[in-house]
Amino acid sequence: MTQHRTADLGFARLDLDRGRRTGTPEVVYAAGKTPEQTIACLQGLLDGGAGSAFATRVDPRTADAVLDRWPEAEVDAEARTVLVGTPPEPVGSVVVLSAGTSDGPVAAEVCATLRASGVAARRVDDVGVAGVHRVLAVAPDIAAADAVVVVAGMDGALPSVVGGLTDRLVVAVPTSVGYGAAFEGLAALLTMLNACAPGVLVVNIDNGFGAGIAAARIVRTVAG
Amino acid sequence: MTQHRTADLGFARLDLDRGRRTGTPEVVYAAGKTPEQTIACLQGLLDGGAGSAFATRVDPRTADAVLDRWPEAEVDAEARTVLVGTPPEPVGSVVVLSAGTSDGPVAAEVCATLRASGVAARRVDDVGVAGVHRVLAVAPDIAAADAVVVVAGMDGALPSVVGGLTDRLVVAVPTSVGYGAAFEGLAALLTMLNACAPGVLVVNIDNGFGAGIAAARIVRTVAG
Amino acid sequence: MTQHRTADLGFARLDLDRGRRTGTPEVVYAAGKTPEQTIACLQGLLDGGAGSAFATRVDPRTADAVLDRWPEAEVDAEARTVLVGTPPEPVGSVVVLSAGTSDGPVAAEVCATLRASGVAARRVDDVGVAGVHRVLAVAPDIAAADAVVVVAGMDGALPSVVGGLTDRLVVAVPTSVGYGAAFEGLAALLTMLNACAPGVLVVNIDNGFGAGIAAARIVRTVAG
Amino acid sequence: MTQHRTADLGFARLDLDRGRRTGTPEVVYAAGKTPEQTIACLQGLLDGGAGSAFATRVDPRTADAVLDRWPEAEVDAEARTVLVGTPPEPVGSVVVLSAGTSDGPVAAEVCATLRASGVAARRVDDVGVAGVHRVLAVAPDIAAADAVVVVAGMDGALPSVVGGLTDRLVVAVPTSVGYGAAFEGLAALLTMLNACAPGVLVVNIDNGFGAGIAAARIVRTVAG
Amino acid sequence: MTQHRTADLGFARLDLDRGRRTGTPEVVYAAGKTPEQTIACLQGLLDGGAGSAFATRVDPRTADAVLDRWPEAEVDAEARTVLVGTPPEPVGSVVVLSAGTSDGPVAAEVCATLRASGVAARRVDDVGVAGVHRVLAVAPDIAAADAVVVVAGMDGALPSVVGGLTDRLVVAVPTSVGYGAAFEGLAALLTMLNACAPGVLVVNIDNGFGAGIAAARIVRTVAG
Amino acid sequence: MTQHRTADLGFARLDLDRGRRTGTPEVVYAAGKTPEQTIACLQGLLDGGAGSAFATRVDPRTADAVLDRWPEAEVDAEARTVLVGTPPEPVGSVVVLSAGTSDGPVAAEVCATLRASGVAARRVDDVGVAGVHRVLAVAPDIAAADAVVVVAGMDGALPSVVGGLTDRLVVAVPTSVGYGAAFEGLAALLTMLNACAPGVLVVNIDNGFGAGIAAARIVRTVAG
Amino acid sequence: MTQHRTADLGFARLDLDRGRRTGTPEVVYAAGKTPEQTIACLQGLLDGGAGSAFATRVDPRTADAVLDRWPEAEVDAEARTVLVGTPPEPVGSVVVLSAGTSDGPVAAEVCATLRASGVAARRVDDVGVAGVHRVLAVAPDIAAADAVVVVAGMDGALPSVVGGLTDRLVVAVPTSVGYGAAFEGLAALLTMLNACAPGVLVVNIDNGFGAGIAAARIVRTVAG
Amino acid sequence: MTQHRTADLGFARLDLDRGRRTGTPEVVYAAGKTPEQTIACLQGLLDGGAGSAFATRVDPRTADAVLDRWPEAEVDAEARTVLVGTPPEPVGSVVVLSAGTSDGPVAAEVCATLRASGVAARRVDDVGVAGVHRVLAVAPDIAAADAVVVVAGMDGALPSVVGGLTDRLVVAVPTSVGYGAAFEGLAALLTMLNACAPGVLVVNIDNGFGAGIAAARIVRTVAG
Repeated sequence: MTQHRTADLGFARLDLDRGRRTGTPEVVYAAGKTPEQTIACLQGLLDGGAGSAFATRVDPRTADAVLDRWPEAEVDAEARTVLVGTPPEPVGSVVVLSAGTSDGPVAAEVCATLRASGVAARRVDDVGVAGVHRVLAVAPDIAAADAVVVVAGMDGALPSVVGGLTDRLVVAVPTSVGYGAAFEGLAALLTMLNACAPGVLVVNIDNGFGAGIAAARIVRTVAG
Repeated sequence: MTQHRTADLGFARLDLDRGRRTGTPEVVYAAGKTPEQTIACLQGLLDGGAGSAFATRVDPRTADAVLDRWPEAEVDAEARTVLVGTPPEPVGSVVVLSAGTSDGPVAAEVCATLRASGVAARRVDDVGVAGVHRVLAVAPDIAAADAVVVVAGMDGALPSVVGGLTDRLVVAVPTSVGYGAAFEGLAALLTMLNACAPGVLVVNIDNGFGAGIAAARIVRTVAG
Repeated sequence: MTQHRTADLGFARLDLDRGRRTGTPEVVYAAGKTPEQTIACLQGLLDGGAGSAFATRVDPRTADAVLDRWPEAEVDAEARTVLVGTPPEPVGSVVVLSAGTSDGPVAAEVCATLRASGVAARRVDDVGVAGVHRVLAVAPDIAAADAVVVVAGMDGALPSVVGGLTDRLVVAVPTSVGYGAAFEGLAALLTMLNACAPGVLVVNIDNGFGAGIAAARIVRTVAG
Repeated sequence: MTQHRTADLGFARLDLDRGRRTGTPEVVYAAGKTPEQTIACLQGLLDGGAGSAFATRVDPRTADAVLDRWPEAEVDAEARTVLVGTPPEPVGSVVVLSAGTSDGPVAAEVCATLRASGVAARRVDDVGVAGVHRVLAVAPDIAAADAVVVVAGMDGALPSVVGGLTDRLVVAVPTSVGYGAAFEGLAALLTMLNACAPGVLVVNIDNGFGAGIAAARIVRTVAG
Repeated sequence: MTQHRTADLGFARLDLDRGRRTGTPEVVYAAGKTPEQTIACLQGLLDGGAGSAFATRVDPRTADAVLDRWPEAEVDAEARTVLVGTPPEPVGSVVVLSAGTSDGPVAAEVCATLRASGVAARRVDDVGVAGVHRVLAVAPDIAAADAVVVVAGMDGALPSVVGGLTDRLVVAVPTSVGYGAAFEGLAALLTMLNACAPGVLVVNIDNGFGAGIAAARIVRTVAG
Repeated sequence: MTQHRTADLGFARLDLDRGRRTGTPEVVYAAGKTPEQTIACLQGLLDGGAGSAFATRVDPRTADAVLDRWPEAEVDAEARTVLVGTPPEPVGSVVVLSAGTSDGPVAAEVCATLRASGVAARRVDDVGVAGVHRVLAVAPDIAAADAVVVVAGMDGALPSVVGGLTDRLVVAVPTSVGYGAAFEGLAALLTMLNACAPGVLVVNIDNGFGAGIAAARIVRTVAG
Repeated sequence: MTQHRTADLGFARLDLDRGRRTGTPEVVYAAGKTPEQTIACLQGLLDGGAGSAFATRVDPRTADAVLDRWPEAEVDAEARTVLVGTPPEPVGSVVVLSAGTSDGPVAAEVCATLRASGVAARRVDDVGVAGVHRVLAVAPDIAAADAVVVVAGMDGALPSVVGGLTDRLVVAVPTSVGYGAAFEGLAALLTMLNACAPGVLVVNIDNGFGAGIAAARIVRTVAG
Repeated sequence: MTQHRTADLGFARLDLDRGRRTGTPEVVYAAGKTPEQTIACLQGLLDGGAGSAFATRVDPRTADAVLDRWPEAEVDAEARTVLVGTPPEPVGSVVVLSAGTSDGPVAAEVCATLRASGVAARRVDDVGVAGVHRVLAVAPDIAAADAVVVVAGMDGALPSVVGGLTDRLVVAVPTSVGYGAAFEGLAALLTMLNACAPGVLVVNIDNGFGAGIAAARIVRTVAG
């Protein structure tokens, strides 16, 4: 069995070989961590040899602390992410579509994750199916991409339409946008799992990070 | 308070004034009734003065029994309905769209209900959003209607697209078509309740009858 | 395909032709928007040629900001809506019933939406079925309307009773009023989807806006 | 602690003192039992000193076997019950209302249970709220009863209306009648738990037996 | 049809004849009402001829305002109720059991409702089934009552045990006490609906008021 | 890493070292397998060196085929299990309680699994909490056991009572016995997860096999 | 907008350009279709210019009818699929893992779909996590693939382990295998949506077809 | 029947013999209690003769109050527990595994409960299945334990892997860690109930206390 290098921080043990093993370096999930813990994790990853380190679900207080520590860090307030160090040069091409303006933060998390993974992203917002001409207008962009990520709450119908327009994989992200019988994203999740167009795969509700990693894996597979 | 005429059949009491009171004559729900009971109900409605009588959820055995009793009855095997007597002359115009071929029986129930209610219907099948050009192709028909009924299972996404193409009311009917996380129509139901296009109203799963009655009410309101 | 004019505000792209296309001008959903963003959207709609612009789910701070910008704006605190400019002259007639006093805000949103859509509304509160004489007392008003909107939480039973009293379409709005096994409006939603009276159509929980738009579409269809 | 007499049949142990202890003699739940087992249980109860013995959820084959054994047994095919021996003389007065004809079997189980418990019942069917005049017509019967049992499927709205018409306890029985979003009686169950009228208590879906026992307890409490 | 006197307060219409009609005077549900509105409702009921008026779900601010207006009012902080005026002399006898100390507020609401309804209550706390000897110790009290109310959260198992010890009606109140898979009272609710002992009827989660009213109806039926 | 011997049957690969590794030899889950496949799996386990082999969820046709192949096999029709070869001598002591007669098949599966695992079991049926004296009567047996398995459907309340009577681990098995809001065992499952007595652990619905294996692990741990 | 060729069969309209547009030729979903309808659809696709045509959810009677019509058709009884004509030469490499033998039919559907899509597949069964060495043993195969499909029911845990072993995309297919709280695949679905390893995407329950199409899209994207 | 000593504190009645009867002394559940009430309960238990007393779900304010009263008390801030007095000398050996750092507080509650119960625990954090080598690394520790407790949120997959590595009982604790379709721990709960490895038993979500008590019962059974 292969070697496994680990950095034990007491409150967490960093898997320093995950990048080599899975192509995805360990990422810091900052929710529930103190600013100090998040910074220690980021530092641990850099110390372990990573060229850059990335954290998601970063609250403003932690973002400020990161900027104090690494003034050149990239903080994306909409996505609630921070990136320290220099990520890989972007390769490939992923289109990230969102249905409504409220889906923006999740779309932003997808894009920030792609950037941290060294993948080029193009984001197009507010192309919900209630004005279906809007999504038809970006069909050429979709056709030229390596993969498409579609972010939608409420009825979650956008991936079904996009899946019928392209031969690329469609990564669908349900969001918790909506009220009442949206049930915090359950409605959109079920819609997407039942998409009548083939080629639609689904991640957890509001999981922009997971969608970004998945799209990056496709791009890396393409890039060989 | 107004008068209420009732025909007591022992196993059921027919509300003979419902047509006058609500514009919708009582309809026989044949599920769980014997052929003899269904026929007695239909006869009771005709005896009560109705020009025609209509039954839904009719199984083949009951349909045969109705044809024995009223050879001129209209039996719609796909819709599982029977119509005896002469319905009102059709007025108005309702477009009935269905997303996939499996949604056919529910779309047929909508159309049979409209016919029994004296409303003209035009049915267009298999216009699901995975090939969105198919629904765009019928946009002119939709624009010319008094109301639109949209029948869809699986992702239930069609009403969201149609609702964005028309200024008419869209009556959405989720169907139990699909498997797994379609949960017998629950996914489509939630999608439709969360439709991002306004003007979409929803009936119970597989309730083609309810959708037909609702569309007929709109037409009658228009007709004055 | 028809022309689509869009106003791109950076954080949102306004669909300026939705009114022409669907009869329903784009409406600003203010939840999750800053006061500045809501005002920009309203201004964008007016700039695009609309005679009036309407926003829902407006919090008090945004309402104050709107009044600062347009002192003549109509702010409905109960409905949490604002209306700037001059809406169309009201036509038609819609009766809006609510079951209990706690359902008031949703009923108010229905009425404000109807007013913004140029439709006349008459609201009657607190006519729940536990005192069924109260709803019987307004039967004549119901009979004279183009459509009826029924707002109810808890058991959601009112539409079933109203649907049996009228030949008009009944638009049922479940509310999140109630506790325990009301499950934030789920109980009322299921009741309404299973209404034993025909002609009852359902919108999402607490979706007074959707019900208002739907009722307005009926009135416009009637008005030709 | 009090004495507990038990009859051990191998596959079941009969609680012979339950009648003395709880006022409700043990009743045989025949579902999942062979005809021979059901007969053995009934015989065991009679042998234990009961004047009569009662079984519910009896399939036709078991009913025939019971009639072979006790030709004078009362078999209620609609209720799926059998009663052997002589039940107590009926006392008190319970009104049993059902909303639709499909709710009949559950209403019949309520009445058969009341009869086996020595309580007089009056059953009124098909008084659903879509024709609310039907339930108003029986208001005097309701007023004169010791308790009211209301059986309803679909929207389950009837107990809310009845609860507002009487000062007696209303025992509400949701039934699995309905389709789609009725979810096998869940919709009616939730409606009844959220009844806006006070004095409504609820039993399990289709549990006519439980409702009958509860109503009988009230009558016995009244009778002292 | 009988006369219906109503007091219209603008934000609510009080049903002044509900007491005569249903034996339960209208009660003020204070959740979502301002202190001023609650006081106006209480005053309206007294003005309408009631000897006392009762409100539930009263927050501390409203309780203080009520005491300012009626210094002799009975405020029950645990139950979150207020009672103004003089309730009827207590009759009958109801035992109120609760499973754990956290169920106290709901048990208190049951007792306060009984007191406001003129029914005598005896409350016994902390008799959960994990120490089944505790409930056996109060079996004589249960036997002597007109009805039993059982309040329990978590596993909701207490009514099943109590129902096997008495021939009185058991009104079961599930509470939202518990965490995780208690799902805010859903677990206890389902347990109680499936109680293996007959004679158990269920109200909504945390609905101490409803249980109190139901028990009072039984006592009044007994008292004739 | 340790050695892993596997027998590849084409349609299945038997884990021959699971017994050594986990103390639980691989068991054949016969549901969905043909009689021939089940027999091949049993033979493969015996060929792999096991002294006995055990299968669960065996339908009658497979049971007959097993008896044809191994006439001395133990077939338990109630438990739907077969045992071929000679199981280990029974050690330890487990008490298996069931609440109602319908829970019998699951209790039987627990006992058959214990027997196949070389553990002595004592089964006591029909000790539901509606007659709580029945469970109190077996308290001494419970006290003397190494572990207790409690099988219950409907309200699932029995483990809460048993857990308060003993200092042994209580393995709770919810069954799908019950109807309506029992939701195929969900009610009993939630009850048991929320048991107010400590020391109660839960397995999947109807999973008598899992409960038997767990109890056997405890006994083996005790036996050292 | 691009051209859309359609073959209208009366009961269905075939989208002949879907292959060109989405890379996935329309596939015949045979569930709910008669053998004649399925054959007509397959013929229609071949007539429309496709080199091969593929149908899923084919029952034995339809499979026989297809073989009568095209004796050289490939019928996969485990997968319930038929393939007529000559599919594209296989390219790429997809590994298909299944957790248990009962997951076989879904894994077979994945492989048949890949074959019909011109993609090479390698299937490895029975590598569930209860014997984690089994999945570790195939880690090299996984590392060499373009994508991995993981099929699992019950706990659905396999994708979480696989996702941590590879840098390729993991397409997770929950199956309805399991009983009780597996809730027909819901448990496995939720597990997979919450996989703690990144790079896991999910399709609908038992949707081997969807997983196959998605994996084929990845391979085609890689192949350029 | 055995004697039952109780200490009545007014707001609670302490079961002083529970320790003798069930091996588990009554533990104070501090959630919803004031600091004074928690201290009174702890004091009451000590007064009743216990050598130590333990409370869970202790908020910081209560912890401070306990330290004021008993400066030598053990406060575990992560576990939110307090222990006063001297617990029994630790015996046995339990391994407590947690999948991720966010599961720490629940794992801490398990360990604190074991310590209060006189059982030795060894805790290993952050061994989730996305890096399966981490759990394999602790296999020897698991093999040497009397029982294993596994704490995991999100996909809840860890117990399935651990259950396949050991012949000891695995007590699985789902946590509410995760977002979206984790549904507050429901996903992990269902995964664990469906664990494909035998010997896995489940407690309520986040119920570290219950898992600790159960593991202690096993150790005490072993210790005889």
